[in-house]
Amino acid sequence: MALLVEKTSSGREYKVKDMSQADFGRLEIELAEVEMPGLVSCRTEFGPSQPSKALESPVRWCSCNIFSTQDHAAAAIARDSAAVFAWKGETLQEYWWCTERALDWGPGGGPDLIVDDGGDATLLIHEGVKAEEIFAKTGQVPDPSSTDNPEFQIVLSIIKDGLQVDPKKYHKMKERLVGVSEETTTGVKRLYQMQESGALLFPAINVNDSVTKSKFDNLYGCRHSLPDGLMRATDVMIAGKVAVICGYGDVGKGCAAAMKTAGARVIVTEIDPICALQALMEGLQVLTLEDVVSEADIFCTTTGNKDIIMVDHMRKMKNNAIVCNIGHFDNEIDMQGLETFPGVKRITIKPQTDRWVFPDTKSGIIVLAEGRLMNLGCATGHPSFVMSCSFTNQVIAQLELWNEKSSGKYEKKVYVLPKHLDEKVAALHLGKLGARLTKLTKDQSDYVSIPIEGPYKPGHYRY
Amino acid sequence: MALLVEKTSSGREYKVKDMSQADFGRLEIELAEVEMPGLVSCRTEFGPSQPSKALESPVRWCSCNIFSTQDHAAAAIARDSAAVFAWKGETLQEYWWCTERALDWGPGGGPDLIVDDGGDATLLIHEGVKAEEIFAKTGQVPDPSSTDNPEFQIVLSIIKDGLQVDPKKYHKMKERLVGVSEETTTGVKRLYQMQESGALLFPAINVNDSVTKSKFDNLYGCRHSLPDGLMRATDVMIAGKVAVICGYGDVGKGCAAAMKTAGARVIVTEIDPICALQALMEGLQVLTLEDVVSEADIFCTTTGNKDIIMVDHMRKMKNNAIVCNIGHFDNEIDMQGLETFPGVKRITIKPQTDRWVFPDTKSGIIVLAEGRLMNLGCATGHPSFVMSCSFTNQVIAQLELWNEKSSGKYEKKVYVLPKHLDEKVAALHLGKLGARLTKLTKDQSDYVSIPIEGPYKPGHYRY
Amino acid sequence: MALLVEKTSSGREYKVKDMSQADFGRLEIELAEVEMPGLVSCRTEFGPSQPSKALESPVRWCSCNIFSTQDHAAAAIARDSAAVFAWKGETLQEYWWCTERALDWGPGGGPDLIVDDGGDATLLIHEGVKAEEIFAKTGQVPDPSSTDNPEFQIVLSIIKDGLQVDPKKYHKMKERLVGVSEETTTGVKRLYQMQESGALLFPAINVNDSVTKSKFDNLYGCRHSLPDGLMRATDVMIAGKVAVICGYGDVGKGCAAAMKTAGARVIVTEIDPICALQALMEGLQVLTLEDVVSEADIFCTTTGNKDIIMVDHMRKMKNNAIVCNIGHFDNEIDMQGLETFPGVKRITIKPQTDRWVFPDTKSGIIVLAEGRLMNLGCATGHPSFVMSCSFTNQVIAQLELWNEKSSGKYEKKVYVLPKHLDEKVAALHLGKLGARLTKLTKDQSDYVSIPIEGPYKPGHYRY
Amino acid sequence: MALLVEKTSSGREYKVKDMSQADFGRLEIELAEVEMPGLVSCRTEFGPSQPSKALESPVRWCSCNIFSTQDHAAAAIARDSAAVFAWKGETLQEYWWCTERALDWGPGGGPDLIVDDGGDATLLIHEGVKAEEIFAKTGQVPDPSSTDNPEFQIVLSIIKDGLQVDPKKYHKMKERLVGVSEETTTGVKRLYQMQESGALLFPAINVNDSVTKSKFDNLYGCRHSLPDGLMRATDVMIAGKVAVICGYGDVGKGCAAAMKTAGARVIVTEIDPICALQALMEGLQVLTLEDVVSEADIFCTTTGNKDIIMVDHMRKMKNNAIVCNIGHFDNEIDMQGLETFPGVKRITIKPQTDRWVFPDTKSGIIVLAEGRLMNLGCATGHPSFVMSCSFTNQVIAQLELWNEKSSGKYEKKVYVLPKHLDEKVAALHLGKLGARLTKLTKDQSDYVSIPIEGPYKPGHYRY
Repeated sequence: MALLVEKTSSGREYKVKDMSQADFGRLEIELAEVEMPGLVSCRTEFGPSQPSKALESPVRWCSCNIFSTQDHAAAAIARDSAAVFAWKGETLQEYWWCTERALDWGPGGGPDLIVDDGGDATLLIHEGVKAEEIFAKTGQVPDPSSTDNPEFQIVLSIIKDGLQVDPKKYHKMKERLVGVSEETTTGVKRLYQMQESGALLFPAINVNDSVTKSKFDNLYGCRHSLPDGLMRATDVMIAGKVAVICGYGDVGKGCAAAMKTAGARVIVTEIDPICALQALMEGLQVLTLEDVVSEADIFCTTTGNKDIIMVDHMRKMKNNAIVCNIGHFDNEIDMQGLETFPGVKRITIKPQTDRWVFPDTKSGIIVLAEGRLMNLGCATGHPSFVMSCSFTNQVIAQLELWNEKSSGKYEKKVYVLPKHLDEKVAALHLGKLGARLTKLTKDQSDYVSIPIEGPYKPGHYRY
Repeated sequence: MALLVEKTSSGREYKVKDMSQADFGRLEIELAEVEMPGLVSCRTEFGPSQPSKALESPVRWCSCNIFSTQDHAAAAIARDSAAVFAWKGETLQEYWWCTERALDWGPGGGPDLIVDDGGDATLLIHEGVKAEEIFAKTGQVPDPSSTDNPEFQIVLSIIKDGLQVDPKKYHKMKERLVGVSEETTTGVKRLYQMQESGALLFPAINVNDSVTKSKFDNLYGCRHSLPDGLMRATDVMIAGKVAVICGYGDVGKGCAAAMKTAGARVIVTEIDPICALQALMEGLQVLTLEDVVSEADIFCTTTGNKDIIMVDHMRKMKNNAIVCNIGHFDNEIDMQGLETFPGVKRITIKPQTDRWVFPDTKSGIIVLAEGRLMNLGCATGHPSFVMSCSFTNQVIAQLELWNEKSSGKYEKKVYVLPKHLDEKVAALHLGKLGARLTKLTKDQSDYVSIPIEGPYKPGHYRY
Repeated sequence: MALLVEKTSSGREYKVKDMSQADFGRLEIELAEVEMPGLVSCRTEFGPSQPSKALESPVRWCSCNIFSTQDHAAAAIARDSAAVFAWKGETLQEYWWCTERALDWGPGGGPDLIVDDGGDATLLIHEGVKAEEIFAKTGQVPDPSSTDNPEFQIVLSIIKDGLQVDPKKYHKMKERLVGVSEETTTGVKRLYQMQESGALLFPAINVNDSVTKSKFDNLYGCRHSLPDGLMRATDVMIAGKVAVICGYGDVGKGCAAAMKTAGARVIVTEIDPICALQALMEGLQVLTLEDVVSEADIFCTTTGNKDIIMVDHMRKMKNNAIVCNIGHFDNEIDMQGLETFPGVKRITIKPQTDRWVFPDTKSGIIVLAEGRLMNLGCATGHPSFVMSCSFTNQVIAQLELWNEKSSGKYEKKVYVLPKHLDEKVAALHLGKLGARLTKLTKDQSDYVSIPIEGPYKPGHYRY
Repeated sequence: MALLVEKTSSGREYKVKDMSQADFGRLEIELAEVEMPGLVSCRTEFGPSQPSKALESPVRWCSCNIFSTQDHAAAAIARDSAAVFAWKGETLQEYWWCTERALDWGPGGGPDLIVDDGGDATLLIHEGVKAEEIFAKTGQVPDPSSTDNPEFQIVLSIIKDGLQVDPKKYHKMKERLVGVSEETTTGVKRLYQMQESGALLFPAINVNDSVTKSKFDNLYGCRHSLPDGLMRATDVMIAGKVAVICGYGDVGKGCAAAMKTAGARVIVTEIDPICALQALMEGLQVLTLEDVVSEADIFCTTTGNKDIIMVDHMRKMKNNAIVCNIGHFDNEIDMQGLETFPGVKRITIKPQTDRWVFPDTKSGIIVLAEGRLMNLGCATGHPSFVMSCSFTNQVIAQLELWNEKSSGKYEKKVYVLPKHLDEKVAALHLGKLGARLTKLTKDQSDYVSIPIEGPYKPGHYRY
């Protein structure tokens, strides 16, 4: 791949779509800051003006998803503050090239910390270390053709190429790394699996399971961004339609609420009887996809699992049924089955909005964002306010890892943030919304055995 | 103004932004048709394939609003079916030039019928006729400087120029015209005022007050398009915010419902105690703008009146408060007061999204679509399904005017469609949504004195 | 029937359940007054302390429904202020006896005005007059056996008995009567039918179609009282259930909203395509009763028509499906079919809550309030606040009829209250809820041609 | 206290309000069974017909709250199946007498297991054992006058009296006891405190923190029962009112949702910033009680803490503001402060509905259920369906304790049920609501590392 890294006048590397959009990006960043009280408050509390200069270090940045970059924002950051390798609409090859660039700190070495989202940077390092070990023992390099998964083929190629340059590259990286903080359900799941198998190479903080992340970003973020993506991509009237939400976890709950309040009739599919019963208590119908595939207008996957909507489902759908995914990975919808269906015709209405027409019925379905995260592909993701909650968790997690790097507090395990930090994140966002908290009296505090300053709930509390 | 009319290869006139977008426009039109069962059904029932060829006549088309054109759709129509003079982001001068082009049918004469939206075409003809009468009597031409209103100055200039070419132009037009059908609250109000003063020059059908228009397009359309516009323009999180909806008519009801269900706290301002009591019954707070101007985050005007949000209000708002209008005209927000406020600074984030910064406080507000219809300026207006209801009313009204053109049924007055046609419009939209109606038995029909086939309600029924 | 009229110490007639409950009734009336700002305001404005003493006259009172009396309130009124003939759980015979008592003003004559609710008092007078005319001409008395309708048999009996005492009784009544004001959809319908056939004997004001009645009492009242009645009668969990609402007029809209927000899945049946499309826009499914009869848990009729849920429907329902009616008359549910179904068994759980078991399936359904208005039979009807709107309309209508009794303003026709009085009713209820209205400026008033003090909307406005 | 235990003809002890209501109670129990699929399914799976006869043992029953008994149901159970000591409206003395009766199994000894709700039975045993130990060592008996708390004085009296009869009574009890299962937030809190201090005398299963309990009973139960209690007690219109919900935990969330959907404007008070931010995301205002005390109409405490609404708050409220509590204990509202306020006057409207009038202002407030659980005092508690979830957890917990009584699995600690049992409880309730679950394929199961049969979520998942 012939991608060239560019440099700013100050010598900082980058690769973005269009540096001329940097001013527009800066304006939008300034607007966003007004919506991100928690994050801005962290900058004030922990930023470069502080003695600790805790957040002053250089940053290298790539995207967690081929569609999730806002090019103008990337340009502003590349110009003003960090090495950015990201643009909207990367190919998978470009995506992993960017990931590798972000992890390449040159001879000085790095990174010290990773802020991850989906776990791809973490994955690359772990796979790299594994390959280097095999190579050291056996001289064997990874074989991309050993896997059917086209994306993993790319990962193996990158590692293979890297091996020939520096057979200790990923080992050096993991030695230096203080830890990672990860914010997605999907990425966290991988971390726990690695912890269980003993493969985890450095400490990890699970930011996803902070209440102020999973019960906010996942729920309220998707409640906002699902209709946003649908409207931008298709302009379709949601009221009166039948919407099927596959999965009723935090993301599914947000999606279902959004569709219901917009006037759709919502049907949920679930494997988990508890979540199913929650859906029923909200007046939603719980059925299988097969039950409703031919009568619904909008389908959205939110499961975190694969093979949810297969091409055989899609063939049975109504003409112009909308099919989209808001889960982290693009394997919830059987895009490969669709793309390779004999005689199928793809008509691109506009970027990220394709009509796929089946040859026999001449009936078509509308697939958003090629089956990837539709809120990133078709809209701009989650709004700043809720992301401020997530990112404040990330900042606090990074500081925690850094401050405790020599204390031995964190082993090669997965940790969640303590309750009082989670509550702090929330507290930082109340003022912007005009809220006023009640304060426990000493007497009340004693009665319920809860400190006046919190934490207010036991760890298992579900909110 | 040096605008040039272009011509298709078949010789049809047009002026659009970019004819190369015609294919994209055609694709979107085809998608829209699937969402417009009523309109498509009219084409089948009354279209060119039918003996009456009722809907086969040539059409000339302009926009009703400087922001409301979708350029790709306009290109497709211009290329394939009608003379179009419209693009997104016209100046006012361009807007009226387009309106005049649409009304200029050349020597053969025309139009026979007007489909109006806001009443500007109707206004131009009425003002033209008035000026021609004065000119015929006194030789006087209209004086644009006689009015403060910059837009009306343009109207007078156009008429003045026209007088010099053909002093009977608008007389000929009104003689030929069979009638107009009008679909907005605002345009209809003008028609009734002209009817009352005896100035109405031809029959008019008030389509706005069909139930399937005012209780659908106005209500459900805005419930969809207000959040759509807000999200596209600002990406702002609506949940947690305080939203002030000025006016609680059909449009205001839709806007308030959208904000409430998106998680905002909604405050309504109203002059009408009945509408105010309705708002209260939905759990909304009813206060004056002055009460809440400094604590709200989002302001939206829906009143159809003028001078709702003045620059003095805007100065008291929170930093980055969003100010927008979804009523037909742009005088609900005091844009002139804002633009001429000493020292105010306008920072265009992107088209239709401006931040206005006041010099004293350095605090700014975000104004959408320059105070014009934000759902047209910042999003794509109302979705096809609900517009299908409105436009089916328009089609039925046009057919009615045409079929009765010689019968004397319609005088120079304003009419609403009879109930059974209104019900027909609704019925045409049920199948798409999977609904099944119940049918009265003969016995039930007799008991309630309602015909089995309808109409089902008395004229005064409010739905 | 051996019912005896009783008398208070002051000699006022009454017949109530239990005079010892008068204190409790008085307490509840005092609580209710706090919730009825419009009505209390009328008392202040027009009451006995005022020169006109407009509302000072004696009143005779019966119930409009066999279940709708609150016995403690009736006792308080009987003791303190008016002649009351009403108790909860009257037989039909008792009901009409009470109606006759209320209309019997003795030798002095009366009544001057009727406040009607459902139109039974009005019906009795009209039928009485009709019978007296026949009797005068032919000597024939009404024959109760001429009708199948058991209730109408009672009416004819009463008239027949009356004829023998005074063959001009109803003639004298109608001569004296200044008019009636009527507040139900059902009663109003009868009035319009009588107006059309020329049978209406005195002026009538249709209070039902005041916006502050039909869009408040019918809608918000039922939204409150349907779940209230269901919960008191059955304690059933509404969340998760499938509720079928037959009819989606104002009452049906309120019922559907209540069930939806309580967590039920709501299915609507409708004959009117416009109302059906409204239901769809709110995310409700529109099907026929046959489509859903065997899968729903709760059925509620709101149509104003008859024969909505027949015994054959009931036989197909799930075990313990709840069947109830919230429309004015008890013929929406086929109680006769149920009662006479061979082998059916009625098990009274408690008053107004019966389980009917079919012999073949041993499966039963729960019928509320014997098919009559379940919110009156199983709960206490609509809350005071919304009734204050309705009753303020009644008071204003009564005053209007009385004040204009000699002016000839009102003929033997049906009238609605003028818009400004409707708006006044709403305005009287705003302060209690803390609302503050916006006031038009002179300039705005001119611009929209709406008087500063209202009325704010044209007559056809739908709210 | 001169309460006499009665006996059925078969010799079973009981004390209920009115045995003649047993038939009515049986009818209602049969209705309830149709709504309790989980519980009925347990009876089928584990009941007397099964070899293990697991649920066949005798039961002694008292109430957990002075208002929570339905007398007709108690009568039916007393007559047909178990020793019941409970009636609606017990004094505190009667309440503890009943508790003691339920724990008194006579010479044969017992109980083996306790199903607790609030923890009072568990408290009595723990206090009894403590007193017996002191008595054994020092001869000292408990001194009721040693505490200010009137209820605890009663507990100490009972123990003191018991000591004189059998100084080892509670020791024998705790020796025999296999364990307790407890279902309230409040009771569970006590158990954890005892576990921490080492005072817990037998194993305990925390049923409250089963998802199918705390996220169902607490949330959906209260969403149902708060409006139910308000309507039965006051008939007040909720729409248009301002409702203050103190606390936004599971119970508060249910209450706030109920008030919002009924058309009230809801204000939340909270100490916990996370819960506060959740309230904001739902469009609710978060303020302190002091901010809103004089403008709200309805106040409901849900905190589990004490001293939430003090008499000084109540004095500032609007006339006829409604004050109620839905938390487990009656100390959320300062009833003592109210009762002892100089000159205050109590007017009982009806049982559980009192108007308290302050002497200075003549303004009154309405207090429900004397500050105790208003949904039990003024209505019938939570509906059967959601209680079926809670009670199925109880049954499963009891079986678990019993089956493992000799295995040593459970120490003197507090346990929660394993996830798969929690999911089982939910699964047992889906069929009744017509839901159909999706089943994982083997391939999907492997991909997400979740067994096809569950459990589907990690322990920390929040739902």
